[in-house]
Parts: sequence; structure tokens; C-alpha cells
Amino acid sequence: MNSEKIKQPNMIKQGNLNKNGGLNKKSYGKKLNNSKITSSKKTKTANASARKNTSRGRAVTKKSKPSIRVSFLGGLNEIGKNMTLFECEGDMILIDCGMAFPDGDMLGVDLVIPDFSYIVQNVDKIKGIVLTHGHEDHIGGLPYLLSNANIPIYGTPLTLGLVSNKLKEHSLFNSAKLNTVKAGDRFKLGCMEIELIHVNHSIPDAVAIAIHSPAGTIVHTGDFKIDCTPFMGEPIDLSSFARLGEEGVLALFCESTNAERPGYTPTEKNISTSFNNIFNDAEHKRLIIATFASNVNRVQQIIDCANKYGRKVAFSGRSMVNYMDTAEQLGYLHIPENILIDIDMLDKYPSEQIVLVTTGSQGEPMSALSRMAYSDHRKVMVGEGDVIVISANPIPGNEKTVGHVVDELLKKGCKVVYESMYEVHVSGHACQEEIKIMQNLLKPKYYIPVHGEQKHLRKNAELAMFMGMDKKNIFIGDVGSTVEINEDYMKEIAPVPAGKVFVDGLGVGDVGSIVLRDRKHLGQDGLIIIVASLDVYDGHVISGPDIVSRGFVYVRESETLLEEVKKLSLNILEECADDNIHEWGIIKNRIKDEVSKLITQKTRRAPMILPILMEV
Amino acid sequence: MNSEKIKQPNMIKQGNLNKNGGLNKKSYGKKLNNSKITSSKKTKTANASARKNTSRGRAVTKKSKPSIRVSFLGGLNEIGKNMTLFECEGDMILIDCGMAFPDGDMLGVDLVIPDFSYIVQNVDKIKGIVLTHGHEDHIGGLPYLLSNANIPIYGTPLTLGLVSNKLKEHSLFNSAKLNTVKAGDRFKLGCMEIELIHVNHSIPDAVAIAIHSPAGTIVHTGDFKIDCTPFMGEPIDLSSFARLGEEGVLALFCESTNAERPGYTPTEKNISTSFNNIFNDAEHKRLIIATFASNVNRVQQIIDCANKYGRKVAFSGRSMVNYMDTAEQLGYLHIPENILIDIDMLDKYPSEQIVLVTTGSQGEPMSALSRMAYSDHRKVMVGEGDVIVISANPIPGNEKTVGHVVDELLKKGCKVVYESMYEVHVSGHACQEEIKIMQNLLKPKYYIPVHGEQKHLRKNAELAMFMGMDKKNIFIGDVGSTVEINEDYMKEIAPVPAGKVFVDGLGVGDVGSIVLRDRKHLGQDGLIIIVASLDVYDGHVISGPDIVSRGFVYVRESETLLEEVKKLSLNILEECADDNIHEWGIIKNRIKDEVSKLITQKTRRAPMILPILMEV
Repeated sequence: MNSEKIKQPNMIKQGNLNKNGGLNKKSYGKKLNNSKITSSKKTKTANASARKNTSRGRAVTKKSKPSIRVSFLGGLNEIGKNMTLFECEGDMILIDCGMAFPDGDMLGVDLVIPDFSYIVQNVDKIKGIVLTHGHEDHIGGLPYLLSNANIPIYGTPLTLGLVSNKLKEHSLFNSAKLNTVKAGDRFKLGCMEIELIHVNHSIPDAVAIAIHSPAGTIVHTGDFKIDCTPFMGEPIDLSSFARLGEEGVLALFCESTNAERPGYTPTEKNISTSFNNIFNDAEHKRLIIATFASNVNRVQQIIDCANKYGRKVAFSGRSMVNYMDTAEQLGYLHIPENILIDIDMLDKYPSEQIVLVTTGSQGEPMSALSRMAYSDHRKVMVGEGDVIVISANPIPGNEKTVGHVVDELLKKGCKVVYESMYEVHVSGHACQEEIKIMQNLLKPKYYIPVHGEQKHLRKNAELAMFMGMDKKNIFIGDVGSTVEINEDYMKEIAPVPAGKVFVDGLGVGDVGSIVLRDRKHLGQDGLIIIVASLDVYDGHVISGPDIVSRGFVYVRESETLLEEVKKLSLNILEECADDNIHEWGIIKNRIKDEVSKLITQKTRRAPMILPILMEV
Repeated sequence: MNSEKIKQPNMIKQGNLNKNGGLNKKSYGKKLNNSKITSSKKTKTANASARKNTSRGRAVTKKSKPSIRVSFLGGLNEIGKNMTLFECEGDMILIDCGMAFPDGDMLGVDLVIPDFSYIVQNVDKIKGIVLTHGHEDHIGGLPYLLSNANIPIYGTPLTLGLVSNKLKEHSLFNSAKLNTVKAGDRFKLGCMEIELIHVNHSIPDAVAIAIHSPAGTIVHTGDFKIDCTPFMGEPIDLSSFARLGEEGVLALFCESTNAERPGYTPTEKNISTSFNNIFNDAEHKRLIIATFASNVNRVQQIIDCANKYGRKVAFSGRSMVNYMDTAEQLGYLHIPENILIDIDMLDKYPSEQIVLVTTGSQGEPMSALSRMAYSDHRKVMVGEGDVIVISANPIPGNEKTVGHVVDELLKKGCKVVYESMYEVHVSGHACQEEIKIMQNLLKPKYYIPVHGEQKHLRKNAELAMFMGMDKKNIFIGDVGSTVEINEDYMKEIAPVPAGKVFVDGLGVGDVGSIVLRDRKHLGQDGLIIIVASLDVYDGHVISGPDIVSRGFVYVRESETLLEEVKKLSLNILEECADDNIHEWGIIKNRIKDEVSKLITQKTRRAPMILPILMEV
């Protein structure tokens, strides 16, 4: 990575803060009347009358603060594609620019990105995009955004390291405006000042973002968990959240991934015990551990165990190699000397001296672990001499694929440690009690659950209500939704253009609902093509009709049926010619209708019927 | 249902049993030396020498028993399609004949049934098929089996009631040989005597099956759980299992569905408390409860609550209506008078007087609940006035679909109770402690885990080993596997023909791997058809080439690309004609190759390329 390329932004140093951590007291940072969020009747009445006095009598001398507008370009009612736009006094900033994986009905789609049209329209107003961390659902949309709008990017060192790799692949690195910032930093983007707060997550260098705006302070948690004993690095900076809470927070945007789960997410350190047991028990066997390539601390734990138990470490899977390369270069991964070996060197060591760290913990068909399971890996053959650990939980939707990989590994005689058999994985997201602590510290006036499907957002909102927040101070939006927030109200206004854009191969946005509908139809039932050459003068059949089918039925076993289709089509064509019907639209529709009817009656299937006529 | 149609088999009455419950002591039922399954070294040695004496010295006067052969036609390394064949002294019997739901890669397939070819080959030997219970994965293959081989069927009343409905749909009811039997019954099928033992499961009238054969007693658990306080009916008949264990069990075939789960499956009665709370809390809202149509006792609980809280009950979903109809007719469901209303009558009652029991607990796209969620139900509109309870857990693979249904219902303002929010569902399958109890009671010599993927089968086997069974006395098979079992050994022999047969519409077995491969290709990338008419004499192009694409790309946005395809194809065709290449195979392949190359380079996609040539 060309680290010289990455600039330092025009920074407001920590030293500029006053002793309370406040800054520029005039326009923002004033402590809000936090008692407003309590639900006691008395407090409400007091507030109501206070507001009344203010607006009717105009007794208060200070100017009322402006509003901040927030538009959700992704991440609501979906997992992934996180992107939020903030606008205050004509300045705009973005938080994150993620991608999402396609749903099962998005056939052939490689990935899904936000619709950037509103960004492109407003590119002159946008002062920068601030990244919370380096996961794909937060940075994966950047190459597609940057090829439309070269917005300055702000992120922590590891996040920008991963972004740089991505931009290089898309040949966008040289033109990109990358600015390295770190937790604790404050910097100005137009009228808004950004403050980054260290949080724990399943990738290092994750931050929450406070936006000190003329409208008040907004906090966006990004993805977080509260880990007071992380395996590496610092615990979450709860003190800064407490300070922000004391200064006054207008609105809190809080992630919802684990909002359905009661209690706390366990600490990453718990995994050490399990790993130690596994290394201990593995004895003369080779160890293969699958985890997320981005979970650098998890890999560090594996390396530390390998060092302790005298095993060499090899990485398998392109993304694992790339992530570890970047993480090591930037100092987030510490590999003792002589412990790392190339995957080609595995044969040079006995099994008990090897641990192979691999991708594929989600059962992805092309991943290293899947290839091992299905005997399709060029370098690694697995069998009875292997203990395989899947150090990750299946993401919803991947349960069956992961299960199949486990089944195949077991059939090969491997010992497989998966799911809840040992504590080999902890989540990177806050459970209910952690979300409550965040609310408790920040005491926001308005609460906006983000990052999740409807059920997650609702559960998160319920937690706020359980903490005493009034329902009207909570907003659950959708992609495109826009809210206007200020001291006096939060209200939904007209939505902005937003949605899903499909990336398929090199094409961005050229696959839409019609193409997907056809793919679904073809995939479910296949197709029958009826092709004929017609006399240009009288419309009679000169050649054909020929019947070609794909994905419909074994042709050899259905010759009679296809012969019937041929006869029927010929009859229709000749009838049309006799009746002087030469409009191809009409002829084709008649063939479609009658062939469909025949096929349904004979097979109860509905293949796509595609008549093609040629004039000779 | 024409209940007269269903015959009583030639029954051996309970009274014929001797006081120990034994029967025909000469040929089977002798107590096996159960100490053989303990793992202590001393016992092993003792057994080994005992065996040695027997075989070498032929000191024992009694003739050694014959073998029993067991072939697995389904249910191993898969969920569903359960079917097992037992053969002893030339007689054959079958246990169950299930179907499976297609995997995600079986595009367009409606259901999967076992390959019956081995059954059809041996139809003269087969004395009958005995059913354990009425779930689709145990009876769903019957119509397809019976249309090939009209084997006599033995099942309990509810099971046969459900089978009858199924056979009527396929016009096979009149010719079918249905024999009603019940738990506790014993009847002869050739040289084997069948004994049915009552078990608990998520459908009433489930039984385990003991086969008293000349080779010894085989027990097949079917699907079971141990519920000492079922909501209706009797607890599992543990005493009979104990008696069988005392008499001696040669081999136990034990289901593995929940073998990964520690502890016990909770009793069905636990759900009463949750339902009572939900009915209590629902107050002025309409209640909609989704559950499996076959879970008659669950529906009975709902009806009882409705009665208690003064609500009317309506059924929604074709299978719910049909199952309840059959269950009520046969006395498995008790509906108090005036409580049941037709779904068309919903509007005549206030919300708080309604509970709607519906299908769709798995998020199936065409089910009643999904239609309600996506505003596509003709009779039920849901919204803020509804409390919706999903009284089922998602079957692995359905998590995402169920999640989407929940999301949509929440967006409509419904209150949704799902997953672990309340105890609104318990499994019908035995967890680890229950499986151990079954082993403890039956003390089998050989142990064969059935019903499950590899990971379930392995876990089940591990439980047996943990109980002290020797690894060599446990067999984990695959579909088609055949084992020969007798007093002295259990060994795997040559497999029988077996596998997956796909049902798609009216077609049974006419969709195979090539059709599925084409469907997958078409579904992922769509297709490009290149059609041209060639001069019959010189091979030059007379008309075309025309380019037609589906599921590939928006045609309007890709006119240039498709124009390039056209030009390229024309060049190839003319070149071939000039070079006197008239073999269509060669010409088509050249078009395929070069067009593929062009498309890949321009789009990184791989649509199916289908050249069609016509002679004029």
C-alpha cells in the first residue's frame, strides 16, 4: 500500500478542546435538557410549557438552532449496504458506503450497491465520506461511488488500508482522496465537525462517529460491541460516550444487528480458552481453522496459539492472504519470525506442526474450505488426520451451505468443531444490554435504530422504549427515508432517490427486474425455442419449424412431446399464412399461447416459449 | 374418507403373548448377551473367547440364526425421503416411504422421492410397507411407489387417513391395500412379525416398529420424543421398549434429527402457558397463529384456548383445512360446538373474538401467512389490529424466508411473536438425553443412526459410543447402503440401486442432472440465441443472423454489444461457407467459442450461447 498517498486531514488537535471536552460552545455542544426523554408525566408537562413559552412569547434571546437532515441510502430493512447522508446548512457528509450480498431471488447478481443518483446530484455539497470500519457492508460500495463522484474519504489506518486494496483493483487508487484519521481525532467537514470514538468490533480500528453540527450533536455507533477485555487493543472508549452524553446528544443512530439477543456478547478473550483446548487436544493432527479474513484479532489468537504449541501457520484463500498482508504491514497483526509458511510448504512439515488458517467459514462455494470439503482444492487434501474448526457462526441464509460443508468434511473422516460445540466464535455486535448501556451513556433526545431488517430495528426501538423513551422520539425508516431533526422536533420529510443497484460481472445497473424475472423463469422451467423461416411473399413456412429446448426435459425421453409442439406450431404458421395474417407479433403470441397450453396439459410445467421467425 | 375401505390385517392378538411378552421363542426373542456392548476390556475378552468356542468347536447344538439384510433407500445424509428395506429368509418389508423437499440447486423441482427400481425388481418378495407416522417425509413417496408396485400398506388410523387423502388425489385409493393397525398390535408379514410401539411426536398416532425376525429383533424408532406429559394421548410406551430390551434387541435404528442438541426436548404442555399468556395479552386484537398443519395437538391447544377465552376459530390454508378435517373425523381433534367458523365469516365477528389458525410457518411463498404478509391473501388483510404467532421453528434453510415474512408483518404494524420470544414451539424429536434413554432401554447389540445429515448421524453414533458401545457395532450408511446383520456380525455388503428421483409437475424422473445444469446456467446468466438461415447449396447466409437474448442484459442498453455479436456471427458463418465448412457441429462450436469470448471480455458474464442454423 502506498502509505504516502494517504493524507492527514486538516485536524483539530485534541489540545484544542476545553477541559470539558466541549468545543465552540456558541453553536453547538450545549447540554440538551435530557430530562425530556424521561417518560414521567410531570417532566413532559414541564417541557411542553417551556416550549410553549419559547415559541409564543419569543422570550428567549438566543437564535433557535437549524435542522439537520438525514437520508438513509441503505442499511434499513436489509443487512448490509450501509450508507447514511447528513445535511446541515447546505453541507453534506456521508457515513459509510457498503455493499450487500444478493438475496436468493437475485439470480446471477454478484453484489448489490446503493443507488448513488442522489449523491451524484449533490456532489458539490458533499464534504466527505467518513468510514466506521473496513467491513464490506461499510466500504464495499466505494469503488462504484468513486467512479461516479470522487468524494474525499476519511477513515482509520486499517480501514483505509483495506479501502486502498479495493481501489487498486478498480484502478481508482491514484485519483482517490484518502485521509487517515484515528479514534479521538476531530476534524471539520464544512459546518460539521467529526469526532471519532474507539469501539470494539470483529475487525480492528472500528470507530463510532459523533457529528458536532450546528443543529446539535449526532452520534452514529457504526457496528460495535462493548468488550472490556478485548484480545488486542483498547476496550471501547465508554468515557467519550459518557462525555458526549453529558454535553448533550440530539440524536443517536444505533446499530441493531443483535437487538434480538438478550444479555451481552461475550468477550473475544473467551475464545482463547477454547483455542487452547483445541490445540491441546489436536495432538498429532493437522489443524485447519476457518474464520472471517477480516477478523484480524481472531487470526492473531490462532497465531499466538500456534507459537505456543509449536505449529507453523499457513494462510489459505485469496482474501485471507490479502487481509493478513495489509494487517501486518499496518501493525495490526504480529507474526513471530519463522512461524509463517507458504501453503506450498505444507508437505515439508508433519501434521502436528501445522495450522492452516482459511476462508470459507460461511460455506461459500468457491472458498478454500469448500474446495477442501469437496476435494477440489489444488493444494490441500483433508481426511482423518485433520481437525477442522469453523470459528464463525453462519450468517442467516448460510446455515444449509455451512451444514453441507460440515457434512462433507465429516464424511472424509475429519474431526469438525462447529457452531456451539466449543466457544470458538463470539459476535462482533452489541446485544440488548450493550445497546441499553449506549443509550444510558448518550441520553439522546431522538433515537434511530439502523443496520438491520425490520425485526431488528423494531427490537432495538423496543429497547429504547423500555428505557423510558417516548415512541414519538424514535424513528424507524426505510431506504430513501429522510428525517429532519432539530431541538424541537423530528419529522419525516419527502424521501430521496434510493434503492438497490445490481452488479453483475462488469455491468453496474444493467440487470433489473425484467432480466431477473426472465432468469427466474428460465431457471425454474427452462425454455422451448420454436424457429421457422417464412416466405417473404406469402408467409408460408420454407424451413422448420425446428424445436430446441434447454432446461425443460430430457429431449430423448420426450421426443413425442416435442414432435407435437412442432406439428402444432407448423399448423399455426400455415393457418396464419392462409388467413393472410402476417403480423409477427400476432403469430408469435398465438404460438406461445397454444404451445403453452399443450405443455401445461401434458407436463404441468411452464417453460419459457420463444418463437423466432425469419423472413427468407 | 371411506373407512370401510381400510382393512384390519391378520392380527396376532396381544393375548397370544406369553407372560414375558415373548413369542415364538425358538426362532427369535432370545435374550442377547448384552454385556457385549460394554467397553470394558474384560468383557470383550470373555466374549471373544466365547465366540471362538462356538465357531471352532461347534459345541452349541442349536442352529445359528439367519441374517437380516437392511437397505437404505433414503433418509441417510439427507433430511427426508425416509425409506428402509428389511429382508430375511427371502421375505422383504419396508418401513416408510417419504419424500424430501428439493435443495436450492434443484431448480424447478417440486419434490424428491426415492428411486424405487430395487423395490419394483423385488415386488414379489415384499410383504408390506409399515408406516411410522403421517408426515410427508415418511408417507409422501407412497403415490409414486404405488403406481409402480401396489404393496399392502400398514399404518395407524390417522396415518392411513392422511395417506388416503393423498392416494385419492392421485386416483390410487380404490386399488390401494390399506390395513389399519395400532400401537400395541402385532401382525405377521412373511417370516417377520411386526410390533408397533406408541411414541410421542409432533403428529398423533406415531409408532416405533419392532421387527421380530428369525434373525432376531430389530427396533426402528421412527421419529420420536419422550414426552411424559403430552398435551393429548398417552406418554411414550417406555415399558414396551424396556420389555423388548429385556427380550434382546439385535439392532436399533434410531432417528438422529436432534442428536446435536444436548438435554431433553421440552414437553408439548409447556406451550399451554405461553398460549394462555398470548390469549390473555391479545385483548382487543385478532389472533393469527401459524403452525404445521400436521401438528394436530398444537391446533387442539389453540382451540382449547379459543374456547376458554371466547374466540371463534377459523382455518386458513388448504392443507390446514384438509388435515383438520381428517383429524376431526378420526377423533384426533375435538372441536367444541359453534366454535369453528368459515374463513369467509371473519368479518362478522369483532377482532377480539377471532383466532385464525394458518399454514405458512416456514415462510413458504404460496402459503396463507406469506400471502397475508405480502397483501396477497384474498380473504385476510392484516395490520395493527393483529397479533401473529409463529408456532414453529424455521427448518434449516428456511430462516431467511421466515425472517422476511416476519419483517413484512411488522412493517404492516402487526405484533409478531416468533422464535424464542415465548415458548410457542417445541420440537417433536428426541434430544441427546432421550436418545440415550432409548439406547439404555433397548440395549441393542448393533446401533444404526438414521434420519439425518452426516453431522446428525455422527453425533448420534457418538452418543452410543459415549454409552459404551464399541465403534465396530455402529454403522453409518448412505442411501443405497446395505448391511447384513446377525448374531455374530454386522457387515456392509454390496449396495442396492437407490438415489434421488425428481418430480417436476407431472414428470417423475424426467428431470436429471443435465436439465438441472442447464436451468442453473440459464438462471444465473440467461442466454443469447443466434439464429440464421443458410443456403442449402453453398452454406452462405440467406437470412439473419438474428440475435435474441433473455435474462442476459437490458436489450435497449446493450444494442451495441448485441450488434457486435451479430457481426461476429455473420463473419464466422461467411468464413465457414467460403472455406467449405458445412458441418453444423463445427460451425456452431466456432460461433459459441468466439461469441463467448467476446461476451466475457465485454461483460465478465457467461450466458448460454445457442446458435440455431436452418437450411433453406
